[in-house]
This record gives sequence, structure tokens and C-alpha cells, in this order.
Amino acid sequence: MSLDAVLARIDETLPDSLDRLMSLLRIPSISTDPAFKDDCARAAEWLAEDLRGLGFDAASRPTPGHPMVVGHAGGTGRHLLFYGHYDVQPVDPLNLWDRDPFDPAVEETPKGKVIRGRGSSDDKGQLMTFIEACRAWKHVHGSLPGNLTIFLEGEEESGSPSLIPFMEKHRDELSADLALICDTGLFEETVPAIVTMLRGLLGEELTIKAATKDLHSGMFGGPAINPIRVLARIIASLHDEDGRVTVPGFYDGVEELSDEVRAQWQALAFDHARFLGEVGLSEPAGEKDRTPLEMIWSRPTCEVNGIWGGYTGAGFKTVLPAEAHAKISFRLVGKQDPLKIRENFRALVRSMLPPDCEVEFADHGASPAGQMEISDPAFESARQALTEEWGRPAAFVGCGGSIPIAGYFKTILGMDAMLVGFGRDDDQIHSPNEKYDLESFHKGIRSWARILARIAG
Amino acid sequence: MSLDAVLARIDETLPDSLDRLMSLLRIPSISTDPAFKDDCARAAEWLAEDLRGLGFDAASRPTPGHPMVVGHAGGTGRHLLFYGHYDVQPVDPLNLWDRDPFDPAVEETPKGKVIRGRGSSDDKGQLMTFIEACRAWKHVHGSLPGNLTIFLEGEEESGSPSLIPFMEKHRDELSADLALICDTGLFEETVPAIVTMLRGLLGEELTIKAATKDLHSGMFGGPAINPIRVLARIIASLHDEDGRVTVPGFYDGVEELSDEVRAQWQALAFDHARFLGEVGLSEPAGEKDRTPLEMIWSRPTCEVNGIWGGYTGAGFKTVLPAEAHAKISFRLVGKQDPLKIRENFRALVRSMLPPDCEVEFADHGASPAGQMEISDPAFESARQALTEEWGRPAAFVGCGGSIPIAGYFKTILGMDAMLVGFGRDDDQIHSPNEKYDLESFHKGIRSWARILARIAG
Repeated sequence: MSLDAVLARIDETLPDSLDRLMSLLRIPSISTDPAFKDDCARAAEWLAEDLRGLGFDAASRPTPGHPMVVGHAGGTGRHLLFYGHYDVQPVDPLNLWDRDPFDPAVEETPKGKVIRGRGSSDDKGQLMTFIEACRAWKHVHGSLPGNLTIFLEGEEESGSPSLIPFMEKHRDELSADLALICDTGLFEETVPAIVTMLRGLLGEELTIKAATKDLHSGMFGGPAINPIRVLARIIASLHDEDGRVTVPGFYDGVEELSDEVRAQWQALAFDHARFLGEVGLSEPAGEKDRTPLEMIWSRPTCEVNGIWGGYTGAGFKTVLPAEAHAKISFRLVGKQDPLKIRENFRALVRSMLPPDCEVEFADHGASPAGQMEISDPAFESARQALTEEWGRPAAFVGCGGSIPIAGYFKTILGMDAMLVGFGRDDDQIHSPNEKYDLESFHKGIRSWARILARIAG
Repeated sequence: MSLDAVLARIDETLPDSLDRLMSLLRIPSISTDPAFKDDCARAAEWLAEDLRGLGFDAASRPTPGHPMVVGHAGGTGRHLLFYGHYDVQPVDPLNLWDRDPFDPAVEETPKGKVIRGRGSSDDKGQLMTFIEACRAWKHVHGSLPGNLTIFLEGEEESGSPSLIPFMEKHRDELSADLALICDTGLFEETVPAIVTMLRGLLGEELTIKAATKDLHSGMFGGPAINPIRVLARIIASLHDEDGRVTVPGFYDGVEELSDEVRAQWQALAFDHARFLGEVGLSEPAGEKDRTPLEMIWSRPTCEVNGIWGGYTGAGFKTVLPAEAHAKISFRLVGKQDPLKIRENFRALVRSMLPPDCEVEFADHGASPAGQMEISDPAFESARQALTEEWGRPAAFVGCGGSIPIAGYFKTILGMDAMLVGFGRDDDQIHSPNEKYDLESFHKGIRSWARILARIAG
């Protein structure tokens, strides 16, 4: 069977795969620092060259920022687009690294061999799992797997300023039937997972204004309205006693889990006590009668991310401030409409203002939740492939945070994304001593071979 | 009648009085800046010398900081102690002054002649009103008015670090029957006033702690408790719908105004609309069914003076902070017990903490309200004296802020204080272009002569 041959080839050539990854890791492609602009270009060219060597029609394509790498396999059948990013985070504080971040090495650790170096997990090691799978496939089959496009970004760690314009300009070229994204992790370090639910995010900043200037609380305390108190009342009213958000219409479009997904999540046996205990907490806050995992993956929230007003320095100042501020975010799920929620939130705040107070709002973004159509058989196929490779039942999971690229693929290119990755919670991405388990790299390559065998072509 | 002779002498010698004030104003006695240490000593010596010339047994007395000036008249009868301070505020920003702050001059303005210069109102001009009244008295009577002590501080503008130790060390020497303090103002610039109610102040800082570190709101938003929300709920609960403070026992010791004082305050015809309108407000907040003046002078409050937590910079950060902070102050009146209120406030906060939250408190001072015994006939006598001099009925008023010296006189020296002053709201004390109306200086001297004629000896 040809999949076995591909897997065998992967195993045999792992040292070569590792060498290639090391070469890529040696390029300090820090996208946010202009001093590394040439290195980003070099990483893009290295990848384009590697893809061309595999038979992709590939090039490093200029943008106003760092280049995009695009390669087409030119096969037939269902069009799959693979996404990863070749840029990396800065490395400071450098003194906290145990080795040069751009002189990677395989190190022995109590938990097994790891590839140590900046970008090993985020995202060079991950994107190379896919390319290496293609390489083994090509060796065995003589051709690349089906109608495949590879799309690698160089600005993921610096806000992706060129991404949307590039996708809009090359919409026809990049629109595929399904995107594959390799920038996520295993569930609790061992269970393969496909992220199919991504929470959306609505960011709001509000400023409550009262008097025209800061007042002395001895002179005005009492008769003058205090905007901090007004703000506190508004914030306190945003949740009811059951932890539900009180913004009118907030739960419109929020759906309950399907029995199938609920069963998968229960099977994950997520250790809620450990999850909370690791950050010093013991009791789940939030909505009553919902488990933490359910809350994080499938329930919407309202959180205050920042608050400030009046005197905040050392000592004391008896000021009655003219303004008070808060940054508030809503995590969204299902079919919640961010713009409708923004409108209702602002109306609620305005309805709570006492006389002489005004409110100003600033918009910090509004993106809907991403919910993949897992009725597409490719999802179930991939789940089975991952289950086979890792020996544990893979799950369709949620992601509490936002992965903007998945949203852009949906809104700009009209395609769902399948998020599969092999990172682990202790990979120290964005931190000193980043690593990627050699097992993640090896089984990651094998996972993609298995997935491609089921869904490509 | 000898009072008339004293008043006539004051009128005749006003230019000389003014010259002496100008000499004192030329000494840059900025107490907070060590560069002016010698100038502070010089101002103290200038005053001691002047007092000795008047027949006081007076000296500039060293402290670990700037000297105190103490002078005794050595007469008989009721012992009165006069307090003022010879130190002044810094003068920066210097470029906002229209003249050298330490080169004072009398200037014509649309509202009459003013003495322009740092310290003219706060407090050199005010303290000299009393000394000049003594000078005229001495000239007419041949002796100083009764059993009088003058006590002048040089650290009022820099936290008075030496004051309490000095008073404690010289308790017998400084304890009098009544203190006279000249560091306040006319009511609304025209009505003479004696401050008989000073609000106390309790300052509290609280830190609500939840998780052991800042969390990502995508990862933890929902199941992890948010200390900003906890803090907002606590703050929102500190007042009820009628604007009353909810701390248990808070109103113990709060008394209603006497009919007499209430009538005096009504006669002041305080313009509430203008008071609020000047700072952009239109409706009184605070307790229902209380006028703004009543609230500021005679009602206790709870205000939030500062709040902070989470991300407060530009843009947005989806952080779930580990801590949230607030600075909260209580203005106290009547016989409210600051320490009891602190205890009850802290207990209330603790009772509102959800699981996994802790609170830490920091103490920013606790001083009870000052309520002078206006049944002492000296108060009514002084009120009549001021009414005669200014041609408008003088009033016993409150002060929304705190005047610490009055509290120290009560707690350390066991005496009440009568606060009489002639400053005006537009004197720009602590600001560039400080001034004191020539009328305040002149009628201030005459006021003290009239008061001393009624209460001294």
C-alpha cells in the first residue's frame, strides 16, 4: 500500500528532514524588526527554492512588507491550500536563552528529544511537517498530492499588514476548496485535535466623561458625579447572577453543542481542576452549569481587559476625575453578530448614564466566530487519520482565542479551514528557549501523509 | 473708644504694614526645595525679630526641618494661640508668571488693587493681618492683647514633618484655650466666614487578587474570575439608589444641622447651579434631598479617587489581569469614627469576594472630622466682629476638605480652633500669579483688631 511506503520513506529520511528544518531555523526571519528584512526575504527564497525542487510552481512574491511564498502543485481534484508562516518572534531577552536562538540543535530532555531554537514550533517546524510529507509523497508516487497550493506568510508575527491586500489581489489564485492550517497544537500535549470552532472577538473601549476637569473631592465630593462610579456600575451590570451577559440579544445565534461534539469533549477528560489550579484558581467562574472547556470553546463571554481613571500613582490624591476608561472585549461564538452586539452594548451603556455624563466609544475590532462545516467529509477523514497516527481518538475542538487567518480565508476567499497542528503547551513559543518535540515533527509529517492520503486528489 | 483708635491706627499705617509684608514676600521661603533652606530660616528669623520688636518673647526655634517661630505676649486672661505658616509653594512653571514671584508689587486690576507675589495669600499676607493688628493694638494700648501666643510653621507646604513632634515636645507651652488660624477664605469672595466644621478623611487602597498571573482572555475568559469585575461590583455596591453609603454603621455619629446653622447657610444663598455649572455639571449627584452645600460641608461621602487594572495603553490587549486596584476615600463629619468605618468597610469588601479572590488593603490615613464647639461665646463674638467689619452677616461654615492643623490642635493640644481668613477663590494659591486683595489685607487686619477686642484678655 502506497501510504505505508510514504510513511516508511518519512521514517527513513527523518534525519534529512531535520537537516532542512535546521537550515531554515538558522535564518533569523524576525518580521517585526526592520534589521532582519533581508533575512525574511532569504527565508522566503529558501522555501520557494525548496518547493520548486519538489515540483511546485513556486516563487517568493513581493509585498510592501515581507514576501509571500506561493507554490502550486498543479494537480487535479479538490483544491487544497496549505498555510503556514516563516517569520518568527523576536528573541529578547536574549540572556534567558540557553543557546543562540538561531543556532538550533536537537537536545535530550527528560520528556524526550526536542528541536531547540526560535521558530522550531512557531511556525517553521510545523510548516515543514507538511512540506516534508509532500516530499515523501512525491518520492513514492512520482507526483505531488493532487491540486495543492502552498501559501506561506512572512508577517504573521507582526500584524500581517500585507495579508489582506495580497489575498484580495490574488483571490482567484488562492481560493481553494479547503484550507489546511498548521499553526495549532495537540490537546493537552497528547491528543490530536482539529480546531473547528474559533471564537470571534469584539473589542470596545469606553470613556465616561463627567465634569470638564478633575475636581477636588473635598470641594466637590458628594454633589459632583464621579465617572469611576458610573463606570463601575455599568461594568457590574454586564453580567447577571448566573454569569450570563446582560447585553440585550447577546445570546442570539449561540447554539448548543451537537451530541457528537459533546461526546468527543467529554472523552477528552479535560482536567478542569488542574487547568485552573495551574494559575492559582480552584472554582470555575463564569456561566453557571457550564464546564470550563465548554465555556472556553463554545460559549461567548464579556471581559474587562483594562480599566483606569483618577490617580493611580503612589500615595493618595483626593481627586474626583473628569473621566474614567475601560477596555472591554466580547468573545463570540456560533452565529453571533458582532456589529449587532456592539450596537446593543453601546445602547445599554448609554441607557445607564446618569445626568451630566457622556460616553465615547472606540472600536477595537469586530470579528465573528469561525465555525467550520464539519459535515464536509474531509474533517472526519482527517480525524480518523490523526487517530491512527497518534493512537488516541482525535477530537474536533474549539479554540478560545482568535486565529485571524481562518476568518480571512472564510471572508475573503470563501473557504473553510482545517486547523491541525502538533505544538505542545510547553513549547515556549514567543518566549526564550522555544522548542518543538522531535516526536511532533516526525509524527506531524506522518500525520499529513495520512491526511493527504484520505482527502487529496 | 480704644477699638476705634486701633482701627484708625491701622488705616493710617497701612502703607507701612504693606512695606513689611513686601519685605517678607521677597524672601523665597519654598519649604519643599532644599535649595531654599536658608531662605526659610531667614523668613523665620525676620518674623521672630518683628515679633520681638512688638514685645513678644519670640524666637526662631530649630527643628529637624525648617524652624518654628514661637512668640509669647505674656499677658493675662484667656490663652489664645495664633497659627500661620511662613513657607510658600514652589513657583514653577515660572514662565506663566507675569512678574518675578519674589518681587511683589501692588497692581491695579478691574476688581481693585491686589498684592501680587508668591505667598501673598498663602499664607504670608494672611498671617501678617494678625501681626499688624497686634502692632496697632500695642501702639494704642501700650501692651499686646492679653495672653497671646503666636506659632508660625515653615513646613505647611511640604507635609509638616516636624509639626507633630514639635507640638508633642512643647505641649505645655503651646496648649492654649483656643487656637486662631488664618489660612482660609471669605465665602464666595464677599461673605466673612468662620469655619467650624471640617470633614475628616479616611483613605483606603484595595487590591483585588485572583489568578497568580495575568491570563489570556481567549484561553481563560469565562472560567477564570476577573478581578476588575469583582472590583467594579464592590464599588457599585458602596452606594444605594439614594446615594447613601452602604458601609454598615457608616452614618453612626452623623448629626443633622442645628436650626441656627441651617438658617445661616440658607442666608448665604449659595448658587448651586453656578457652582456645578462652572465645572460643566448641571444636576447634583450624591444623596437625594440634600443640597450641594449641605453635602460638601456636613455630609459624609465615599468616593473612588483612582482605579486601575489590566491593560491601559494604546490599542487593545486581551488580558485577564491578575489584580485590580482602587483608591477610595471617605469624607467624614460629626462624630464618625474613622477606624470603625475602616473596619466595617474592609469587612464589607471581604464579604463580597467570590471564591479564589483575595484583597489587600493599604492605609492612606484616617482623621476624624473637626467640629468646633460653637457654644463657646468666642465664636459668636468673632462672628459679630466680622459682620461689623465686612457689612455682611458672617456665617459659621463648613469646609469640604481637610485642614490637618485644626485636627492636630484638637488631638495633641486639646484645643478647638477658630478658622478665620480673608482669601478669595481667585487668589491663585499654589499657582502662578498668586495675589491677595489689598482689601483682604486691610480689612483682615481690622477684622482681627475687632475680634481681639471682643475675645482677648
